[in-house]
Amino acid sequence: VKITLAQQNYIIGDFEHNTQKIITAIHRAISEDSQLVVFPELSVCGYPPRDFLEFKDFITRCEASIKQIAAHSKNIGVIVGAPSVNPDVLGKDLFNSAYYLYEGEVKQVVHKTLLPTYDVFDEVRYFESAKEQKIIVHRGTRIAITICEDIWNTGDNPLYTTTPLDILVQQSPELIINISASPFDFNQNHKRHQLIAGICNKYHLPLFYCNTTGAQTELIFDGGSMVCNQQGLFTHQLPFFEESISTIDTEALHEIKQFDNPKKIELIHDALVYGIKEYFGKMNFKKAILGLSGGVDSALVMTLATRALGSENILAVLMPSEYSSEHSIKDSLHLCKNLDITHHIIPITETFHSALQTLQPYFSQTTFNLTEENMQARIRAVYLMALSNKNGYILLNTSNKSEAAVGYGTLYGDMCGGLSVIGDLYKTQVYELCTYINRNKEIIPTNILTKEPSAELRPNQKDSDSLPEYDILDKVLHHYIEERKGPDEIKSIGYEPVLVDRILRMVNMNEYKRHQTPPILRVSSKSFGSGRRMPIVGKYLD
Amino acid sequence: VKITLAQQNYIIGDFEHNTQKIITAIHRAISEDSQLVVFPELSVCGYPPRDFLEFKDFITRCEASIKQIAAHSKNIGVIVGAPSVNPDVLGKDLFNSAYYLYEGEVKQVVHKTLLPTYDVFDEVRYFESAKEQKIIVHRGTRIAITICEDIWNTGDNPLYTTTPLDILVQQSPELIINISASPFDFNQNHKRHQLIAGICNKYHLPLFYCNTTGAQTELIFDGGSMVCNQQGLFTHQLPFFEESISTIDTEALHEIKQFDNPKKIELIHDALVYGIKEYFGKMNFKKAILGLSGGVDSALVMTLATRALGSENILAVLMPSEYSSEHSIKDSLHLCKNLDITHHIIPITETFHSALQTLQPYFSQTTFNLTEENMQARIRAVYLMALSNKNGYILLNTSNKSEAAVGYGTLYGDMCGGLSVIGDLYKTQVYELCTYINRNKEIIPTNILTKEPSAELRPNQKDSDSLPEYDILDKVLHHYIEERKGPDEIKSIGYEPVLVDRILRMVNMNEYKRHQTPPILRVSSKSFGSGRRMPIVGKYLD
Repeated sequence: VKITLAQQNYIIGDFEHNTQKIITAIHRAISEDSQLVVFPELSVCGYPPRDFLEFKDFITRCEASIKQIAAHSKNIGVIVGAPSVNPDVLGKDLFNSAYYLYEGEVKQVVHKTLLPTYDVFDEVRYFESAKEQKIIVHRGTRIAITICEDIWNTGDNPLYTTTPLDILVQQSPELIINISASPFDFNQNHKRHQLIAGICNKYHLPLFYCNTTGAQTELIFDGGSMVCNQQGLFTHQLPFFEESISTIDTEALHEIKQFDNPKKIELIHDALVYGIKEYFGKMNFKKAILGLSGGVDSALVMTLATRALGSENILAVLMPSEYSSEHSIKDSLHLCKNLDITHHIIPITETFHSALQTLQPYFSQTTFNLTEENMQARIRAVYLMALSNKNGYILLNTSNKSEAAVGYGTLYGDMCGGLSVIGDLYKTQVYELCTYINRNKEIIPTNILTKEPSAELRPNQKDSDSLPEYDILDKVLHHYIEERKGPDEIKSIGYEPVLVDRILRMVNMNEYKRHQTPPILRVSSKSFGSGRRMPIVGKYLD
Repeated sequence: VKITLAQQNYIIGDFEHNTQKIITAIHRAISEDSQLVVFPELSVCGYPPRDFLEFKDFITRCEASIKQIAAHSKNIGVIVGAPSVNPDVLGKDLFNSAYYLYEGEVKQVVHKTLLPTYDVFDEVRYFESAKEQKIIVHRGTRIAITICEDIWNTGDNPLYTTTPLDILVQQSPELIINISASPFDFNQNHKRHQLIAGICNKYHLPLFYCNTTGAQTELIFDGGSMVCNQQGLFTHQLPFFEESISTIDTEALHEIKQFDNPKKIELIHDALVYGIKEYFGKMNFKKAILGLSGGVDSALVMTLATRALGSENILAVLMPSEYSSEHSIKDSLHLCKNLDITHHIIPITETFHSALQTLQPYFSQTTFNLTEENMQARIRAVYLMALSNKNGYILLNTSNKSEAAVGYGTLYGDMCGGLSVIGDLYKTQVYELCTYINRNKEIIPTNILTKEPSAELRPNQKDSDSLPEYDILDKVLHHYIEERKGPDEIKSIGYEPVLVDRILRMVNMNEYKRHQTPPILRVSSKSFGSGRRMPIVGKYLD
């Protein structure tokens, strides 16, 4: 049997676009003598459709698309993801379903059993869980169809009380298909391989895994669809971060291949470039603007943006104040030259002093403090947003995860932007990624990587005046944010108790700032944004 | 039997505060000869604790609080809400539970069955549903304990397949207790009364309903705890928007009372005042600042803030530009006088022109357009945030729901603020509320209410230049946002098709702006914020 995996990229709610793309792949599969073509989870409407699922109109359009697609299934089986209406009055209105189309009609609809409702996932908000698990039989081949999370319990996932594969294998399938919309994080590909090899081994069945690709705002879908044989060995793998259609003969699953899976830092790099490209492409934007400070964060964002959008579509703005050091300008210009980027130098001094003078009578404390620092960052934002509005650029945010965590940034100042590119990278990871980018050739000037981090908002300011050293800070943050360890647990690892309390307090009290940040490209297992939901008001863990 | 309802206000994560408050109420109940004291849902940790529930440390602290509280239950029964650990390995780690404490120990733990996972609720994210429903027997009295949503299915709620009360009544309880954390919207109190009267009628049992009070950022909990007898008639009701402890004799449930339930507009008014007060109180802020434009939105926000915080804690800032009309200043000063508010007049002209001059060389299109309009709004934000930072004020946001819906506002300009006070009120409701405030006496100057709305960012600008008339706009928005009707459904009601498409397109394309707005005090059944989750990137319903 020949099976085609269609690893495609959809636009949420663009039924015409998605349906056409699916139909095109069906015809390609037919031309490759395939008997079955497989599309990702919720391919018809794009994933995640979120509250659009609560609009009847949206569901009606999904159904109409399925009908249109079914008409092309006369001579080929099609497995395509879409919501389907729960016929029972009681329970959520919808299922998250895989439609089996053949001979021009809907032959069977299989529903998702395990509905992820944690981190960025909200599936119980919309969907009812499948009440039964049934295989399909396509031209005599018995196939267990599963949807994404359905394979993520092999009996030992404590989140769930059902193991769909255990039920399905009792019906003697010859192979397993999984249709997914599995978002990227830098460990996810490794985890998927381990999981799938384990499943094939356990059940002695081959598995065809079809993941979606593309990015949907902050969620990046990496593709990497694959085939694993019944010995748990991989025979096919589709590329990462791009669309790909591949027809695979089930007779060829003894030809085991070694796939060079990219290293973590390479995956992060490619994911971020892809995330920028996708955001701009799907929003119909071409050009990006960003403030270039001379520091490592904006240097990295500009490099990634250049790779995503092309140097001709980037505008760098250098906005020195009286506290900017000479090397900031020099290093920024050096980077612009390396990347062939147009830049403007627009000092903020005059506007800053005009605002200062206007406000001076109302400043009860006249000493220079955080207020004046924030004002500089906010005037830069006024400039950047004005240039953005006037000339049609989208502002890229350059905050990193360490800053976002402890609130080291100015709301409505350097925290502005349409998209946060590196908001899920700790400062130490920012340096790692720069080193990776420079691995063959100096692209980001070495001086940017070796000088001490500074916001340059007052004379001789250093990040370390306000923050613990980043290598310690980032470790403590990782324990708290990714691992969700409490203060006592973190202290027991060996960090200084006073420091741990200080860091955790900073994280908690800055929830209000993070509430107003741009969407952050997610590359870790716990990114700020929809995957981490914290109260703003509260006393927390003191 | 005497039962005490303790309608209390908790701080999320402040275990010491919450535990002390609970213990104090237990002793008060004892002093009133009560046999049972009832506290709201998740009272020990506050509701909603969100992802703090994923921290083991947080759960350990909940357990420690229960232990402390139990020690005070020697001579009185206590029903108190807290998470409890699911002993099964499989399934979510926690239950949302009611602890029955007596004789100094935990006698029984009852779990929530119906876990709301829609709108602002995410309970399946954290909790496993109860596997059994068991009544408790306190000193011989058989009591059905239910937790919030558990009573919201009486067999006809299509969201759920279980009806906990049907199972509980088979165990012959003599009364029902419900512990809730039920957030306010302007119809919720009415709905609760209908629901509870229906339950008492259906099962011929009295019901004691204990709701929490206080606000947690955007969610306002209105209290309004009540007792309904087995005929479905109300005998007791606790006040709205304040703490209250009341001991009720089950022998006295024949004394039916008529309760004057406040009208919708009065509830909205009281809820918003309470929401501001609570946000400031719990964040340890005292003073608010806001920009007063001469328009109706900022006038209303200032009036509500004055009622919440006192006129001595409000600073009004008038920031005229060359496009401000004379009446804007005059009307604003009139309002300040009516409310006895300190004000500053700080023109933005100089800073605006300084910024304009600096940027002029880079403005490829030199005609005055949206850029220059946005710049004015953003320079005002720079001023307001500077005064806020320097003098310790919190900036109140003054955007309304109509503007937020269609994106008629400047990101990082008038969309700034720590809290959005009227972001869940359509413009027409803004006027209604002003009229209510002026019902006895002119507080908000009539001229503010009668003049045509204008952002005054260019000569002779009117809202109606860019937006449909508010009475139509608001209706269409209500169909789309609250009722989740699709474009065809809305057109079929009789609205002009071109207008409907235009409005819906504006709502969809401004999702990116709403992503960065402050938390909005929720007063409707569908507020922008955590209750409405929409993709930013997508093509939507064209």
